[in-house]
Amino acid sequence: MKKILVLGAGRSSTDLIHFLISRAAEKNYVIRVGDMDIKMAEQKTGGHPSTTCFAMNANDEAQRQTEIANADLVISMLPATMHPAVARDCIHAGKNVITPSYVSDEMWAMEADAKAKGLLLLNEMGVDPGIDHMSAMKIIHHLESQGADIESFESFTGGLIAPESDDNPWNYKITWNPRNVVLAGYGGTARFQQDGELKFIPYQRLFERIIPVNIANYGDFDGYANRDSLKYRKIYGLENIPTLLRGTLRRNGFCKAWNVLVQLGITDDSFEIENPQRLTWKQLTASFLNIKSTYDVVAGVKSYLNVDDISMQKLTWLGIFSDERLDIEKGSPAVALQRLIEKKWVLNSQDKDMLVMWHRFRYLLNGKRMELQSSMVDIGVTQLNTAMSRTVGLPIGIAAEMVLDGRIQLTGIHLPVIPEIYIPVLNELEKFNIRFVETSKEL
Amino acid sequence: MKKILVLGAGRSSTDLIHFLISRAAEKNYVIRVGDMDIKMAEQKTGGHPSTTCFAMNANDEAQRQTEIANADLVISMLPATMHPAVARDCIHAGKNVITPSYVSDEMWAMEADAKAKGLLLLNEMGVDPGIDHMSAMKIIHHLESQGADIESFESFTGGLIAPESDDNPWNYKITWNPRNVVLAGYGGTARFQQDGELKFIPYQRLFERIIPVNIANYGDFDGYANRDSLKYRKIYGLENIPTLLRGTLRRNGFCKAWNVLVQLGITDDSFEIENPQRLTWKQLTASFLNIKSTYDVVAGVKSYLNVDDISMQKLTWLGIFSDERLDIEKGSPAVALQRLIEKKWVLNSQDKDMLVMWHRFRYLLNGKRMELQSSMVDIGVTQLNTAMSRTVGLPIGIAAEMVLDGRIQLTGIHLPVIPEIYIPVLNELEKFNIRFVETSKEL
Repeated sequence: MKKILVLGAGRSSTDLIHFLISRAAEKNYVIRVGDMDIKMAEQKTGGHPSTTCFAMNANDEAQRQTEIANADLVISMLPATMHPAVARDCIHAGKNVITPSYVSDEMWAMEADAKAKGLLLLNEMGVDPGIDHMSAMKIIHHLESQGADIESFESFTGGLIAPESDDNPWNYKITWNPRNVVLAGYGGTARFQQDGELKFIPYQRLFERIIPVNIANYGDFDGYANRDSLKYRKIYGLENIPTLLRGTLRRNGFCKAWNVLVQLGITDDSFEIENPQRLTWKQLTASFLNIKSTYDVVAGVKSYLNVDDISMQKLTWLGIFSDERLDIEKGSPAVALQRLIEKKWVLNSQDKDMLVMWHRFRYLLNGKRMELQSSMVDIGVTQLNTAMSRTVGLPIGIAAEMVLDGRIQLTGIHLPVIPEIYIPVLNELEKFNIRFVETSKEL
Repeated sequence: MKKILVLGAGRSSTDLIHFLISRAAEKNYVIRVGDMDIKMAEQKTGGHPSTTCFAMNANDEAQRQTEIANADLVISMLPATMHPAVARDCIHAGKNVITPSYVSDEMWAMEADAKAKGLLLLNEMGVDPGIDHMSAMKIIHHLESQGADIESFESFTGGLIAPESDDNPWNYKITWNPRNVVLAGYGGTARFQQDGELKFIPYQRLFERIIPVNIANYGDFDGYANRDSLKYRKIYGLENIPTLLRGTLRRNGFCKAWNVLVQLGITDDSFEIENPQRLTWKQLTASFLNIKSTYDVVAGVKSYLNVDDISMQKLTWLGIFSDERLDIEKGSPAVALQRLIEKKWVLNSQDKDMLVMWHRFRYLLNGKRMELQSSMVDIGVTQLNTAMSRTVGLPIGIAAEMVLDGRIQLTGIHLPVIPEIYIPVLNELEKFNIRFVETSKEL
């Protein structure tokens, strides 16, 4: 019997739990799922006999430590800030742990302790970070083995809405944390490398500096730069690559309209609006202009920021010119905007989401300049088994099985950038129809 | 004998200390000045027999408490974050305290304790905040006493360079904290009230939304909005005023050029540049553009942001296109920019600074719509007795004398918005040639 402890049963845990259940009989797994909301955990396990659920307070150290002590492997699907506490408990109790999140400095500081105890802290095992690392490293290692000189690597991922459920002018619905959608890029500067030079894009220009992306059968997307691409030079072993850029995908035209919200200041999260309930959306929008709310606010925005008609249609549809009141009791403009998009960009029960990943490599090989594009598109299966849940949860489940089988023998902190992890995981993902399509051409 | 403890002997303390010394014989003052740098304290006191100096570690609680216990009145000229600790010590020791800084929430929480002990915590007694409050309240109370209905109050202050020392294309030199100059408005949204409605200006538009200000004999200035004007409705007793805006003054044309730095992202303080010493300024500037640094970076900036020739001259003069290397070992673009302006906007030994304050009131009186403008311009006397030092230090010194004379009998936390403070202080300031000029007209 192998006891797996899954901490957190939110959106992204569904397919992970279903995968583990699917292996339970053969591998003799006992799966224990904890969540603040025990009903959510029970919904995800469906009462399967190999599972038990418990109501968890992630901040209750005693409970956490008791549960961890009883497990053979821990999977933390908690908010990323909780991972270090979980990892510390796991090191103390001598348990391996897997997370889908970026390795924080706090986590890196545990590397020596984990190694000393012969334990594995396997991180960034979801989709982004996760499948992006695995699919990129597979290509990078292949190109390098051929003797290619990689000049450029660009990589974009987006959690979007499937074409069959795409019925609003933004071509977007919320398939993950809405606060992160509103605050994407906020309060920072994106940094990457281009042609051997550092490049910086501050928030106020981020959604104007679009990289167009086209994926066969799926059409056009906007790519915008993520906060920090520079650290991936080291992670990917591409210390001397001239161009390295990672970013996020939205549907073509989304960024131009979103940029209007940024430029107005509606994505600001630095102050609380006084008595927001007394304001209508039209009044809030007017508050960012030098005109009264009783004037023509639509024309005001259009002329203030020279907005094109297609973007104006998106903004009007979203409701920033409406007479509806702000639907928050307190909070910043960003909080009000989040509430608005939660209503307008809601994923309905029949809707399917879509996860899109796209890599572009340019390289010299045998005296030729070549370009390779690799893309993966996954469409959600049901409202629970979303593309987001599949692409985050399945690689974690596959890795968990490998660890419990003893097929991964690593110790210390790891990311899935090494062949002994990415080859079997990518192979297994193909069985779930999560696969990459490659095209290449001479430039 | 009355013992005055002055904590902090930086730039703004000079005229305060000189004022107290000028009263020492008549009022039997003994003035004790503490600073991290005892030489700076000694330079300010000039070895006057009524003074003693000591090397102070503001974080040394025991030293602070010993010094405070020996004083009759404490004046804290320390960084604003230190005031609460000082105030707490003063309450404990039963001493009155004066500061030039905004009252923090932490300070407000001490109100009951101060009152219970019969102590005065007198804050915002410098120039901005300080003289701005006093001069505005004098007018507000006068207009109200006449039965005026005040519709609009705008107030701007700037620490600038005197015309006779104004010899660079930005018409600006650093007369106060250079980090605050670089980060003015950064990371937030200015908020104020206009025609009865809330108005918000995010950082990315702050330096474009200029309020032109003209002061007779001194010419044209740019006014830009300060972070939070809304709280002054309560402070000034103008809860129902339709328009209330406070801001900062720069010379005409400054903001347009500064906005280019903001839009590029060079004022960003959110990340550290990798190995900044290897970059020239031209390379750093190019890093914010979509071109290589070997291309024409000047033309690149001009076309990227559609910059006018006058602003381009300012930027070229500042050195953002130069081949000089960044003069910092580590830090953000904002830190690099601070180093650059510290060199280019340096106040030379013969230079004089200039403090400019300007209020504009619009009101209804006897059926007429009226406008009143009030302005104060103070020019520095010497390199030590700057306008900044005079306008910050003199009102504090005057208030200190009043408190020690028993002419201010208030207890609790106070700002100089009440006649018993502002009338005598403003009268006394006139003797130092710090005076307001009023003009009014019918609209």
